[in-house]
Amino acid sequence: MSLQLASYLDAVRAKTPLVHNITNYVTVNDCANILLACGGSPIMADDADEVEDITSICGGLNINLGTLNRNTIPSMFLAGRRANALGHPVILDPVGAGASDLRTATAKKLLAEIRFACIRGNISEIKTLAVGSGATRGVDADVADAVTEETLGSVVAFARRFAAETGAVVAITGATDLVADADRAYLIRNGHPRMAGITGSGCMLTAMTAAYLVANPADPLGAVVASIAAMGLCGERAAEKTEAAGEGNASFRNHLIDEVSLLTGEALAAGAKVTEYGC
Amino acid sequence: MSLQLASYLDAVRAKTPLVHNITNYVTVNDCANILLACGGSPIMADDADEVEDITSICGGLNINLGTLNRNTIPSMFLAGRRANALGHPVILDPVGAGASDLRTATAKKLLAEIRFACIRGNISEIKTLAVGSGATRGVDADVADAVTEETLGSVVAFARRFAAETGAVVAITGATDLVADADRAYLIRNGHPRMAGITGSGCMLTAMTAAYLVANPADPLGAVVASIAAMGLCGERAAEKTEAAGEGNASFRNHLIDEVSLLTGEALAAGAKVTEYGC
Amino acid sequence: MSLQLASYLDAVRAKTPLVHNITNYVTVNDCANILLACGGSPIMADDADEVEDITSICGGLNINLGTLNRNTIPSMFLAGRRANALGHPVILDPVGAGASDLRTATAKKLLAEIRFACIRGNISEIKTLAVGSGATRGVDADVADAVTEETLGSVVAFARRFAAETGAVVAITGATDLVADADRAYLIRNGHPRMAGITGSGCMLTAMTAAYLVANPADPLGAVVASIAAMGLCGERAAEKTEAAGEGNASFRNHLIDEVSLLTGEALAAGAKVTEYGC
Repeated sequence: MSLQLASYLDAVRAKTPLVHNITNYVTVNDCANILLACGGSPIMADDADEVEDITSICGGLNINLGTLNRNTIPSMFLAGRRANALGHPVILDPVGAGASDLRTATAKKLLAEIRFACIRGNISEIKTLAVGSGATRGVDADVADAVTEETLGSVVAFARRFAAETGAVVAITGATDLVADADRAYLIRNGHPRMAGITGSGCMLTAMTAAYLVANPADPLGAVVASIAAMGLCGERAAEKTEAAGEGNASFRNHLIDEVSLLTGEALAAGAKVTEYGC
Repeated sequence: MSLQLASYLDAVRAKTPLVHNITNYVTVNDCANILLACGGSPIMADDADEVEDITSICGGLNINLGTLNRNTIPSMFLAGRRANALGHPVILDPVGAGASDLRTATAKKLLAEIRFACIRGNISEIKTLAVGSGATRGVDADVADAVTEETLGSVVAFARRFAAETGAVVAITGATDLVADADRAYLIRNGHPRMAGITGSGCMLTAMTAAYLVANPADPLGAVVASIAAMGLCGERAAEKTEAAGEGNASFRNHLIDEVSLLTGEALAAGAKVTEYGC
Repeated sequence: MSLQLASYLDAVRAKTPLVHNITNYVTVNDCANILLACGGSPIMADDADEVEDITSICGGLNINLGTLNRNTIPSMFLAGRRANALGHPVILDPVGAGASDLRTATAKKLLAEIRFACIRGNISEIKTLAVGSGATRGVDADVADAVTEETLGSVVAFARRFAAETGAVVAITGATDLVADADRAYLIRNGHPRMAGITGSGCMLTAMTAAYLVANPADPLGAVVASIAAMGLCGERAAEKTEAAGEGNASFRNHLIDEVSLLTGEALAAGAKVTEYGC
């Protein structure tokens, strides 16, 4: 199946999806700005006394486990259940799953109680959730878990199984990104190593993907593929600008958000390196 | 009355007003940076065990309801009462009032118990506080509440009444900004649509306005007008730079803070588009 | 002793030290980005239920008192004790000590119960900790505490005594930076006044210094000197770029992080203005 990538981006700009974010305080400003840049609209709220109200007026919910705490964890469940009841897509970013028992246990409990439209993490985080044995290096994937051309087939099979178990689109991002549901898998070969040189690349991608899911309800798999390809392509373009000007990491972050705000559906379709696995 | 706009800005730079902020974790970094850029000095503190100490060493207090929670809400009241007792100006940014019962109820309770020098929000937020019926689209004004040339007269009358009731300068910001006390109203036609493309435009404006209020105690109405005109003018200049360079949203944010740090009183007086309503 | 400054920086880039940060929500994004820019890797976590796990997988711990609260204070002690037990360097940034009883008391209790490899603050903060009498202007040093050429000798003696008492390297930063252990003291004359025009200069420096301490376990004094010289030199370079382009505060912040990401050991050795006191 050939995805019409432009249409997913255009739908975001046409619908301005409002996304409720329960997320960490490290990259929250970047998440709000990327949602605005891609054409969505962010609202952040994490107190148990208001998250059900807030998620009710939004179109989707983004749950990110970075800097989770005893106040925000119950809010994740309250908001998640309400979003499920309303049929809003919910996306999970299990930041640092495997790095502490609290993160691992919270992620697993969320998977047991909330229905996710998408789960996006690095290979170590996703392995922790699926089989309880991912290596981890803080919030980064461990080198022992690296996805290579040799391991790609088994990782695809693993992602499909986990997607079948959870009912979610599973997105494993890294040098090559892999997106799977129970039936199909796509590989995305956009992106740039500089994205690992700033905080928030992953969090921003998850937040943006929430907007793509809200705006494209009929095709969650395609929406996630389009969002990841868009962010990767913007990373490539931002890296080009950064290097042409001899700039460093902060400039790259600014160029990345700039490129997301400037990206058109047409440019996405032209620059995306997406292939269906096995086709 | 013709306002000497330069003098308000010059007073901020001359006095370096120290502002205590109880604000959300989404845009808090931008708020701190805008306070430094305009010539003030920020301190952020929200624990009930220290907010009275902190507000006592400052000149003014900025209360912003974004990401309010059960820990920070009591702190808003403690700090607000202390600031009132000390005669420090207190400013309220009712972010998302109307979007959840918690935000609406907290805002109303604050209005009942704390004396504000200024209340700044979009039309939906201010209507929610004044008459309990603003529409809302998350943290953005609803299109149903749009202030147009046709509705301007009734919005001015509404703002004056709300100012008379609360004793605060009421600032309703949008495409056209309106600032009123019980007796007079000013319209400000600076600003740029790009300001809605980044998170924090409103929060930064409120934080900066706190510094203007502290530095200009004899004329709160003029201080608020000057601050809003200054931010709007900087938005215009930042948009020009952004567009000339073909940049996007993140660059606009940087240009905006840059312009605030570069703005002189003279340039403000020359570029401000301020008119007294009915004059 | 002549320090081989390049080697400290090169060690950070070679080892990618993972640093656990319990820090304020104002500058946390800047701290994460500066850790990445200098060659380290950040993780932020502050809930009592996970800080021991998180600090165990890291190489060092950064405790910053900005926006401390009743949830995060117990976490500082839990993480600090665990880091001490594991022999990881712990660094303290007593932001605003002296500005509230809560900050002063928390800082003193931390000093009593946790062994710090380094304490970094402005002169007012360090005086508050050491003798209970620093002046303060919010989170900035009070002018009454200014370190001048005339007072330098007594400040060096004071820093050495405080270092002897605490076992920590004491870093007092300002126009001239001073780093001392019980036996030796270094002066660093890098830096630029523009660094005070953005939020987070101090927080970023402390976070980066944590990475230098982790990567250079054999020589904490030299590691702290190298980190402070590196940040000061990057501040000078960023200010040059900002002024050459007629830019303002936000651009300076971006240039500063850029320069940290671009700095080589060789450039640090060439540009550092470090002298041993009394030599």
